[in-house]
Amino acid sequence: MALLLEKHDIQAIVAEVGLAELMDRVIYHLAEDFGRWEGFDKSPRTANHYPHGVIELMPISNEDWYSFKYVTGHPRNPLDGKLTVAAFGALAEASSGYPVMVSEMTLLTAIRTAATSVFAARLLARPESRTMALIGTGCQAEFQSYAFHHSFGIDTVRFFDVDPAACRKFARNMAGHPLRLVRCDSVDEACEGADIVSTVTADKANRTVVGRKHLVPGRHFNGVGGDCPGKTELAPDMLADLKIAVEYEPQSRIEGEIQALPADAPVTELWQVLSGTAPVRTSDDDITLFDSVGFAIEDFSVLRCVYGIANDGGFGRRSTLVFAPDDPKDLYSELAVPSLPKRVAAM
Amino acid sequence: MALLLEKHDIQAIVAEVGLAELMDRVIYHLAEDFGRWEGFDKSPRTANHYPHGVIELMPISNEDWYSFKYVTGHPRNPLDGKLTVAAFGALAEASSGYPVMVSEMTLLTAIRTAATSVFAARLLARPESRTMALIGTGCQAEFQSYAFHHSFGIDTVRFFDVDPAACRKFARNMAGHPLRLVRCDSVDEACEGADIVSTVTADKANRTVVGRKHLVPGRHFNGVGGDCPGKTELAPDMLADLKIAVEYEPQSRIEGEIQALPADAPVTELWQVLSGTAPVRTSDDDITLFDSVGFAIEDFSVLRCVYGIANDGGFGRRSTLVFAPDDPKDLYSELAVPSLPKRVAAM
Repeated sequence: MALLLEKHDIQAIVAEVGLAELMDRVIYHLAEDFGRWEGFDKSPRTANHYPHGVIELMPISNEDWYSFKYVTGHPRNPLDGKLTVAAFGALAEASSGYPVMVSEMTLLTAIRTAATSVFAARLLARPESRTMALIGTGCQAEFQSYAFHHSFGIDTVRFFDVDPAACRKFARNMAGHPLRLVRCDSVDEACEGADIVSTVTADKANRTVVGRKHLVPGRHFNGVGGDCPGKTELAPDMLADLKIAVEYEPQSRIEGEIQALPADAPVTELWQVLSGTAPVRTSDDDITLFDSVGFAIEDFSVLRCVYGIANDGGFGRRSTLVFAPDDPKDLYSELAVPSLPKRVAAM
Repeated sequence: MALLLEKHDIQAIVAEVGLAELMDRVIYHLAEDFGRWEGFDKSPRTANHYPHGVIELMPISNEDWYSFKYVTGHPRNPLDGKLTVAAFGALAEASSGYPVMVSEMTLLTAIRTAATSVFAARLLARPESRTMALIGTGCQAEFQSYAFHHSFGIDTVRFFDVDPAACRKFARNMAGHPLRLVRCDSVDEACEGADIVSTVTADKANRTVVGRKHLVPGRHFNGVGGDCPGKTELAPDMLADLKIAVEYEPQSRIEGEIQALPADAPVTELWQVLSGTAPVRTSDDDITLFDSVGFAIEDFSVLRCVYGIANDGGFGRRSTLVFAPDDPKDLYSELAVPSLPKRVAAM
């Protein structure tokens, strides 16, 4: 029987483990999984597009586990009180194909996205980076700030959003957190002195959130908001000056900032940086970009991580969403249709 | 909040509605959906293959709804008390991408597969067909018999399975049902006088369950068990004598009996028969084949059907597997991390 984790179960897990510790554990699982990259059966996500949004399925597997995530991207949902990005997913054992866990993944996606940003920054940014510019203070902003503070060492976040209400929401949520917050009135102001620039905007369009003037030696760009065809945040003419790492090239060519580059422009996959075969930052003056779009392996990692916690801690409940019958050759009897005699004498 | 339907909810629905009536309603929804075929965004299912099985995702959408199914095919699962085919899935509203229902689909797959066989037989078989040969009495056998009796008019089922225990199980489950059952000792014997021959075997191999000698004028073959690359039931040299209908050609070329045919051999899609644009049976002597592999539209239909019943009848329970937050721009507060002050005074 699969473990079912709903919203309140994820809340309970975060309350028990602590968000900082949970981020660290997800990063640990990310390092494990990116470290065995070639053992995964990978594919770009499948997308069903609507005029008003997209619904995607993101499967991935290795020889032990299979996971998938169902995720929406409907930018106008907030007008109806719903989230732009909402998700759920499952982790299954490869041996039987049976899910071991079906879980809420809206919160888990927010957590794993921030954890992946930090995981990538550890591989790409200067380790002494302490100041981060945060452009866009929507749903992902607190998770980025939290993860970069606790799991990287950022002590100052300079933030800006075109929506003052979003800025206030962010400041309110981070109040009491041991992080120096500097509210800024423009992207330029936010970027002043920033070692890392995280772009986390939501508009589905090719925007120039940052451009050539933000190219500063040694800086690391953490590009999170550009994750769809026609949805980018960096000026195309700055890309040639950046040393770029992506998650999974076939998907990033379609969805990432690099959709603006020729299809044969060189990019490096994150796992190659991790394995040491293709370092991206080779000097303190290099300007790096993590062109993040969100790849299935990150969901795989967070599901594995949370499954371990839920199993050990007794979170969630057992579900018969998928079940093993009394007799695996007899599905019909599982219906137990009352109008029919069940299991009368054999012929 | 999405409706969650687990195994016991499907059992309750079948008990309330009755399996015969439920089959009829699913067939009604199939006719509706195949009747608006061109309005669907369709793709072959994505499959992650293992040495011991496969896990598939089957998405489909039209302008109102989106559905997907997660389904395993692990032939050795019964050795561990698990089902070869186990499934769950979801129905979502297109406007927001939010699931309205997440449901058990192992039982629903069995029901929709049989309903689809009958739906196809109504389009392909001679209407006066009364005797069906059933080759293979595994998990799908009772559903086929039930549907063909109640929704088509079959009064006699001549059945055979290489496994005597499977034959006994089938006879036991169908006892008391107003259907004449004739247990046979071979495929040849089962096929004697059969208007319809349903093959529902499970072996993952290219088998010759039926061959040229079973070509009888007017007969309809309902080929259900061949549904994977390298998994077929009909002798390739009999296909040229059959008038063939498939569900969705791009998927059936990969998975159906027609994988044995040249890629340009003509086949007709079921919706074309339904619409009258491409009839398959044009005379009582034609020999027809429904080359069934199982396509996502059938899951879409059964999910729509069951969602209506569950909504009207109050089945299932509301779940926060996917949720709408208090403030759609504020996901972080949904975590309600107790160690942090929540919503302290705004700046």
